[in-house]
Amino acid sequence: MLYLVGLGLSDETDITVKGLEVVKRASRVYLEAYTSILLVDQSVLESYYGRPVIIADRDMVESNSEEILRDARTEDVAFLVVGDPFGATTHTDLVLRARELNIPVRTVPNASILSGIGACGLQLYNFGQTVSMVFFTDTWKPTSFYDRVRENRSIGLHTLVLLDIKVKEPSLENLARGRAIYEPPRYMTVGQCARQMLDIEAERQEAVYEPDTLAIGAARVGATTEKFVAGTLEDLCTADEELGPPLHSLVLLGGRAHELEYDFARQFALDKEKWTRLCSADPNN
Amino acid sequence: MLYLVGLGLSDETDITVKGLEVVKRASRVYLEAYTSILLVDQSVLESYYGRPVIIADRDMVESNSEEILRDARTEDVAFLVVGDPFGATTHTDLVLRARELNIPVRTVPNASILSGIGACGLQLYNFGQTVSMVFFTDTWKPTSFYDRVRENRSIGLHTLVLLDIKVKEPSLENLARGRAIYEPPRYMTVGQCARQMLDIEAERQEAVYEPDTLAIGAARVGATTEKFVAGTLEDLCTADEELGPPLHSLVLLGGRAHELEYDFARQFALDKEKWTRLCSADPNN
Repeated sequence: MLYLVGLGLSDETDITVKGLEVVKRASRVYLEAYTSILLVDQSVLESYYGRPVIIADRDMVESNSEEILRDARTEDVAFLVVGDPFGATTHTDLVLRARELNIPVRTVPNASILSGIGACGLQLYNFGQTVSMVFFTDTWKPTSFYDRVRENRSIGLHTLVLLDIKVKEPSLENLARGRAIYEPPRYMTVGQCARQMLDIEAERQEAVYEPDTLAIGAARVGATTEKFVAGTLEDLCTADEELGPPLHSLVLLGGRAHELEYDFARQFALDKEKWTRLCSADPNN
Repeated sequence: MLYLVGLGLSDETDITVKGLEVVKRASRVYLEAYTSILLVDQSVLESYYGRPVIIADRDMVESNSEEILRDARTEDVAFLVVGDPFGATTHTDLVLRARELNIPVRTVPNASILSGIGACGLQLYNFGQTVSMVFFTDTWKPTSFYDRVRENRSIGLHTLVLLDIKVKEPSLENLARGRAIYEPPRYMTVGQCARQMLDIEAERQEAVYEPDTLAIGAARVGATTEKFVAGTLEDLCTADEELGPPLHSLVLLGGRAHELEYDFARQFALDKEKWTRLCSADPNN
């Protein structure tokens, strides 16, 4: 059996009791370590589980899944995923490949950023589609997120923006030379995301949002050090210090926000009076 | 401290290790038992936790929260919620009331139907806003869901429909006579939901969807007995037997579904050839 086990959002104790039982009895334990990370190291997990954990990077999952699925028809293999196993497309691929090989698959769900973000006070049923923001380069600035945000805002919905992480990525130079030398890991901050969003609005000028549009920056959702900062998109460009270490996410508010949502989020506002003024001033903010 | 502890979706072992530690050391343990249910009884939880669990019905949470929050400034109180604590509005209210009383609040996230539904093969980032379907009566047929579904489908997104449950509800007759006698619990099925949806389309005739629109019925998401059935909305009207016992949910597909999503869901199709034909025939299905 292939088990996809969600680890939740923050540390080794966010695994479910059911998930921990699977980990303890599996023949091999893989940790998917490129779409998200926990706030604790591999070594903490290994000592908590009392057994070794094999790091599965993108290359292994996408090009070498036979190794992960080896003997899984007769043995239990645990594939650990930060958050919920269905948070990222990649895992659907792995499940499909297992099915082709007649390997039974079971999922152990867990908290996902998609529901954990509710802690910021916005109602989950008022969120539209989720978008991803990648690190822009001089030559690569994908703007599909902008069209998705427009769609969400056109019907008054909030947008959760998931921020890029770069783990074990070769530098362009090393890639060209075929060297397995990796860049240090990078995690996009709320400030970087907000600036990229404003850059694209300035470029496209289709008034999907503006510097004064309300947003909430989120850091380490689900952890005891969880932190939210509410303000305008422009305010959030300089709120990284306030938010602290990764992982960060951002929510752009939609116009249908309920008064209770504004009230709840007010406690996180950088400037509470400004927050209240903007919440009540513009119903389409 | 008030702890809101998510229990996940299915049985007593879906609690996280962190959540279980909170339950074991709290002074009092409440179980919110009216917005959703686990697939196991209170007695199973009590024996698993090794301690009594107080059932918190809607009346207690909404009108008697002082009792829940009593002494929570100095003691730990655990408030258990099926799924994730932020799945339902009610809990935001409880958090706000705790804050007013200067009671610190911490949340222990867990799997929610909002992410668990990903097991049906549809990508979570292609979902729009979530809607709820209540049991219609002769005189009460709220149709706000219809407008929300229209919005989602207008931008190609899937809609998760959460189905009504009635637990500890007085009958209208007993309510009128002030008697505390309750109806047996009722859980809406996918069939009932699909019929209500088609009834409202027939009434409003705004072509938001049609009997041939693709949908997926889901039962006991996250449990080992999890079951999905894919077909048209009309097919799902008679698929309750196939789906089995509660809890049920329904997903109405949006037109932007990716081929991989159709392929994955095909394994759940009542009629695989019809599924493939409808998936490829109409890009706006």
